[in-house]
Amino acid sequence: MSVFQITVSELAERFGLVSHGDGSRVIDGVGTLAGASPSQLSFLSNSKYASQLTATSAGVVVMREENVADSPVAALVAHDPYVAYAKIAALFERYPASPQGIHPTAVVAPGAQVAPTASIGPGCVIEDGAIIEDGAILGPHCIIGPECTVGAQCRLVARVTLVIRVTLGKRVLVHPGAVIGSDGFGLAFDRDHWIKLPQLGGVRIGDDCEIGANTTIDRGALDDTVLEEDVRLDNQIQIAHNVYIGAHTAMAGCSAVAGSAKIGRYCMIGGNAGVLGHLELADRVNITAKSLVTHSIREPGEYSSGAPLQESRQWRRNAARFKHLDEYVRRLSALEKDSNNE
Amino acid sequence: MSVFQITVSELAERFGLVSHGDGSRVIDGVGTLAGASPSQLSFLSNSKYASQLTATSAGVVVMREENVADSPVAALVAHDPYVAYAKIAALFERYPASPQGIHPTAVVAPGAQVAPTASIGPGCVIEDGAIIEDGAILGPHCIIGPECTVGAQCRLVARVTLVIRVTLGKRVLVHPGAVIGSDGFGLAFDRDHWIKLPQLGGVRIGDDCEIGANTTIDRGALDDTVLEEDVRLDNQIQIAHNVYIGAHTAMAGCSAVAGSAKIGRYCMIGGNAGVLGHLELADRVNITAKSLVTHSIREPGEYSSGAPLQESRQWRRNAARFKHLDEYVRRLSALEKDSNNE
Amino acid sequence: MSVFQITVSELAERFGLVSHGDGSRVIDGVGTLAGASPSQLSFLSNSKYASQLTATSAGVVVMREENVADSPVAALVAHDPYVAYAKIAALFERYPASPQGIHPTAVVAPGAQVAPTASIGPGCVIEDGAIIEDGAILGPHCIIGPECTVGAQCRLVARVTLVIRVTLGKRVLVHPGAVIGSDGFGLAFDRDHWIKLPQLGGVRIGDDCEIGANTTIDRGALDDTVLEEDVRLDNQIQIAHNVYIGAHTAMAGCSAVAGSAKIGRYCMIGGNAGVLGHLELADRVNITAKSLVTHSIREPGEYSSGAPLQESRQWRRNAARFKHLDEYVRRLSALEKDSNNE
Repeated sequence: MSVFQITVSELAERFGLVSHGDGSRVIDGVGTLAGASPSQLSFLSNSKYASQLTATSAGVVVMREENVADSPVAALVAHDPYVAYAKIAALFERYPASPQGIHPTAVVAPGAQVAPTASIGPGCVIEDGAIIEDGAILGPHCIIGPECTVGAQCRLVARVTLVIRVTLGKRVLVHPGAVIGSDGFGLAFDRDHWIKLPQLGGVRIGDDCEIGANTTIDRGALDDTVLEEDVRLDNQIQIAHNVYIGAHTAMAGCSAVAGSAKIGRYCMIGGNAGVLGHLELADRVNITAKSLVTHSIREPGEYSSGAPLQESRQWRRNAARFKHLDEYVRRLSALEKDSNNE
Repeated sequence: MSVFQITVSELAERFGLVSHGDGSRVIDGVGTLAGASPSQLSFLSNSKYASQLTATSAGVVVMREENVADSPVAALVAHDPYVAYAKIAALFERYPASPQGIHPTAVVAPGAQVAPTASIGPGCVIEDGAIIEDGAILGPHCIIGPECTVGAQCRLVARVTLVIRVTLGKRVLVHPGAVIGSDGFGLAFDRDHWIKLPQLGGVRIGDDCEIGANTTIDRGALDDTVLEEDVRLDNQIQIAHNVYIGAHTAMAGCSAVAGSAKIGRYCMIGGNAGVLGHLELADRVNITAKSLVTHSIREPGEYSSGAPLQESRQWRRNAARFKHLDEYVRRLSALEKDSNNE
Repeated sequence: MSVFQITVSELAERFGLVSHGDGSRVIDGVGTLAGASPSQLSFLSNSKYASQLTATSAGVVVMREENVADSPVAALVAHDPYVAYAKIAALFERYPASPQGIHPTAVVAPGAQVAPTASIGPGCVIEDGAIIEDGAILGPHCIIGPECTVGAQCRLVARVTLVIRVTLGKRVLVHPGAVIGSDGFGLAFDRDHWIKLPQLGGVRIGDDCEIGANTTIDRGALDDTVLEEDVRLDNQIQIAHNVYIGAHTAMAGCSAVAGSAKIGRYCMIGGNAGVLGHLELADRVNITAKSLVTHSIREPGEYSSGAPLQESRQWRRNAARFKHLDEYVRRLSALEKDSNNE
């Protein structure tokens, strides 16, 4: 993993940015304003950190036009410094090369199709009927079940399981421990015991989606579970059968969506938030952390549930009152009536 | 995976149902009322969907007697159409065959016992003292530790880990990423640091249980963690050490039970609900999604906790008030006293 | 796995405890007061169980001085019986031996360094640049990525993934399914789609930490994610990028910490509790189960959020009132004003 090097001028040209200061400086990495060395690039996006700019030792800083005058070092000017930084920083992410071809310890069924440009890591198991497209990278111990397709340029970091009837679009990134296409949780109660409903659908995941570590996405009962393109799921998320998630929606860690719920596009679901089954969320709905969505939401906006954090001794007194809130309101109304009658 | 085909008359006979309409029609799959083709079977269970019946293109529909007159297509009459459908649909679930015997890449210790009719997939590791009974199917990458038994006809879909002293009954279905028999979380605080309590018990799981993807079930500290028969666990559930779950209880995704809690039979635990340690829940207790059970429950019924979802701007005002709820109630009581004294 | 045997007198000497009664009794295991046999040791720590002491059949019981008079069997006296029991019980935890060396099915890259005293289990994958130190035990199917170090005497039980740039200190215990060093969830919104921020930091985990089954710990965006020594994480915990957790903090199952939050030392985080990003918690802060920490906490103590469990019918009435709480308080204040003006 050799070090990647680029000058400030080359960065300006490559990303269409205006540069100020020494364009010949060589950059070989990125860092925070407080921690970057003279050979590293940093960024200033949140004005809260503007005071750190004056003391930075970075070689160059990506910033808005308005901050250039205050910069003690070279500057790259961007309309959105965070986005520009994200693009530049990607240059310095060095994964070890993944050799094309199939590792000798991988088990590839005769009926599987693996593109010659794909990389299949140690211990992978590719079952009959699976398709691995051009340039896809499967790290160690991935399991690709029957009727599954891994699209071109996908990266399954390690230990990813696609159970059955799962289709990943192009450039999907899946982190370790994710399970996609497991049985939906479908049960019918037959007098005194449960009967399992077979889960005959699949999962379709659009281009450029990201699926976090140990996240689970069940396959549909009859129709498919669907993620449109550019959906971003953090770690330990649970997506139940027949959920539909619109493009560009992002969900934070430990959130969950119950069966057949439909989430719009450009939604943001906070950490450990939940959406009950069969609900619909419009586009551009934000749910704050740990909230539970119990009814469909038709209007864009931000929604919350829960009761706030306090020192436990106080909290207990208030929580005890919550259990009789309806009674208190009735007493309040009675007092108001009395007061009006006087 | 050839297609399974059966006529409507054969279905009626096999499942003891009365049929109306063309009994010779060949059925090769199942679908929703809206989506099923003329060679597929559908069902009408929830009267909310009765209007879809009149427009269905399904070959035959499972329904109650009362709906037969409205059906444009052949009908199979069932007392509980959802249960009948579940049983019929199972005919059309086609897993690829799992060959008997041990895959050459599996590592089976000399002291392990594997029934000749069992199927041990690629990369499985079976340790000394493990027992795999008749007809059990272990998909790729399962790890079966010492003193573990996998009962007859169990199916471990893929990448399931039984750590140590775990016994699965017959026909237990375990989904990928599940970890059963990991250390319970037992710590003693010794002045300024933690000491670990060894976890010397095991896990016993009854016949016909189902364990979801990435679910974790810890082994007991001294006695065992126990699931009676037909317990159904969805994905990403956490069951701590020495928990006891009664037969036929079902838990939805991301729910959790803390150490030594005892859950009754026929309970339903909603998604992301939690039960604190050492509590007891009676039989037939339902807990709604995201609720936290903080005391034992002696009576059957439905229980909830939490505060409801609102537009965040409104929610913040109400949540701020919650922090002083006890004070408001005292003020209300004072006003009432004043009012009574007038 | 032969049985370990030791006399009561030997236990007293080894752990510096005073014994009463028959010191020659041979002990070969541990059990509960109610369940222990005459060859087993038990303990009495919580006075709630004092009545079980008089009926115990244990061979010896660890207890406080004050309980000795009531003991029908031999006693070992300890200031903290639970801690003394934890240390003694460890004698009886018998893992099967892990042979030194590399299992023939493991895949070890030529540029990896594996100590000759380490044990590398079946199917492990050790990548170039990884270091496995003296006496470390890797159970089956562990994946150790580039620039990762597994410290001396660590135990990775099975199927643990260290993705990249992860350093484990000495004696770290990691349970199956844990993923450490996965990408932090960092996204920048570029007009109409997401851009991923490369995650260039690592994870540093101190000596004597424990990481539960299916827990995920993301690597930092620029700096590292850090756990100081003796941090204890239960199952299914999510630690986001750049989180910092102080020494001796313990977190219960399904809890989560969002990006860049800093947790103090000796904190206790309850099951399914959450901490929002960029917050700071002082030392010795306890958070009760399912609480959400939405602001920094400067003072030690116990903190809670949420609304309490009730029978659902009652709960629904109270929850409906919560949605108008601010209005009720305004009405209460108006009444008070009226009352004062009279």
